[in-house]
Amino acid sequence: MTEADLLAQLRTFPLHEAARGLADDAAVLGSSDGALVLTHDMIVEGVHFLPADPPESVAWKLLAVNLSDLAAKGAAPIGVLVGQALSGDDAWDTAFTAELGRALTQVGCTLLGGDTVALPVGAPRVFGLTAIGRAGPAGAPSRSGARAGDALYVTGTIGDAGAGLELLREGRDGPPRLIAAYRRPMPLIAEGQTLAPLVTAMMDVSDGLLIDAQRMAAASGLAIGIDLDRMPLSHDFIAHAGEDRPARISAATAGDDYQLLFAAPEDEDWPVEVTRIGRFHAGAGLMLEDRMGHVPLPEKLGWQHGLKGRSA
Amino acid sequence: MTEADLLAQLRTFPLHEAARGLADDAAVLGSSDGALVLTHDMIVEGVHFLPADPPESVAWKLLAVNLSDLAAKGAAPIGVLVGQALSGDDAWDTAFTAELGRALTQVGCTLLGGDTVALPVGAPRVFGLTAIGRAGPAGAPSRSGARAGDALYVTGTIGDAGAGLELLREGRDGPPRLIAAYRRPMPLIAEGQTLAPLVTAMMDVSDGLLIDAQRMAAASGLAIGIDLDRMPLSHDFIAHAGEDRPARISAATAGDDYQLLFAAPEDEDWPVEVTRIGRFHAGAGLMLEDRMGHVPLPEKLGWQHGLKGRSA
Repeated sequence: MTEADLLAQLRTFPLHEAARGLADDAAVLGSSDGALVLTHDMIVEGVHFLPADPPESVAWKLLAVNLSDLAAKGAAPIGVLVGQALSGDDAWDTAFTAELGRALTQVGCTLLGGDTVALPVGAPRVFGLTAIGRAGPAGAPSRSGARAGDALYVTGTIGDAGAGLELLREGRDGPPRLIAAYRRPMPLIAEGQTLAPLVTAMMDVSDGLLIDAQRMAAASGLAIGIDLDRMPLSHDFIAHAGEDRPARISAATAGDDYQLLFAAPEDEDWPVEVTRIGRFHAGAGLMLEDRMGHVPLPEKLGWQHGLKGRSA
Repeated sequence: MTEADLLAQLRTFPLHEAARGLADDAAVLGSSDGALVLTHDMIVEGVHFLPADPPESVAWKLLAVNLSDLAAKGAAPIGVLVGQALSGDDAWDTAFTAELGRALTQVGCTLLGGDTVALPVGAPRVFGLTAIGRAGPAGAPSRSGARAGDALYVTGTIGDAGAGLELLREGRDGPPRLIAAYRRPMPLIAEGQTLAPLVTAMMDVSDGLLIDAQRMAAASGLAIGIDLDRMPLSHDFIAHAGEDRPARISAATAGDDYQLLFAAPEDEDWPVEVTRIGRFHAGAGLMLEDRMGHVPLPEKLGWQHGLKGRSA
């Protein structure tokens, strides 16, 4: 069973209007105080993080991936509910918890509650986190609002986390910025709040730039064309992997970037550093090009959740 | 590391006011539309449910234990976020998901969103659920509002689920009402909404009547005395286990009852069927008595979460 199979089954459930048809990063629950944005992600050892990842990195990512979903909806974090499984390794568990507290403090978020459970001996670690935020006065942008003619923009650089994961798997621990991109992604909360009133659609890049862009186009009932040469790469990424077509395809499908991807009318004057990488058209599907012309779609556009797992 | 150790560490975090100092069943987030009540529980195979439990029973319990926390705060359910790990057994996963949809429909709740993850082969199943509800106009009763002289009341009967679990462990599948009490506890949503304006403190009985009553007394800064002979037992429980002191101690410490436990001034006229089982006094601690007089406290008052696990 893949995530797509399960999603199809879940869409037969009684869905709250706030669920946005299960086609968005988060639920958006109306309130006269401003909409509440709610998201829940689980992470599993050996799937979403490496068994050797330090507990501090796991705690940070658990919080960051959820806050990144709030950022993509332009929401200000209110607090989190944490589901923490105790592994039996007290030093690990204590370090994890301490870092979670530091991370909440660092990003100005709070703990609302949660649950603690014991794991059977030898079971992989697993954590869940529900993040709750409040949308701005312009509301929470969906994935589905892009219009034909809109440009596709992305913040920051793409591929750094994927390169970091690759390095860690090879037993290397640098360059530090690539490792940090994998282990300590920064949720772009302020950027999301700044951009939300200016965009027609927004989401974060978690599973891979190509698959996430394709999802935005599909949700908006449009086609998307992306110029791979415009996709922003970091100096560290280029030094590690180069910037030819295979390197760019690898960056565009690796995921874990937690950059913001958005649709908006083309403009030169953005309050956040962003790069225009594509354009929406009438139609359907994803088209890639670079200076050499048409680029055939790679077999995998990103991480498809399901039993093939994700990273480790 | 026990849940108490972890709670002590979590209390050093930046806590939202809504977290109620992590001393309640749920977070209560103020809003001009009525407070939102938020709760998150995880369940793990081999800890909170038996590997042989049917997927329908696991799905039902995942929803029911969370809605029971909303019920204890007098909240009307709005919706849930589900964290579902796919086990690789498609028939099991599909049956689980189908039952979750049926259960949401049955209790008049909706799906807001969530996350799906793959589990490594052989890992125990694990699920998380966040339930969100809206408190009534009188607000959400806490655990800590009991006053000296208040009576302690409980809905329904106690010990049926514990007896059901015991029967299942012995390989038996009846009497059906005891098995159903363990596998399909009913969250007392309507009863919670009716009682909330009338109580000084309320919680659900999840870990055991004695430990939960002791927690309410401690949170309220009071002592609690309980008359074990007043504790309501079902005919099925009595036929299975008897009603002598050891049987009553067993019922009072088994947990998984999901009845509502509340403090209120003594009254004869309740809109819900309840039984008065004790009284709050100035002081601290838990005192038990029955017709024979003082009852020494059992070594275990209920399930202490932590690495000893819970049921299986």
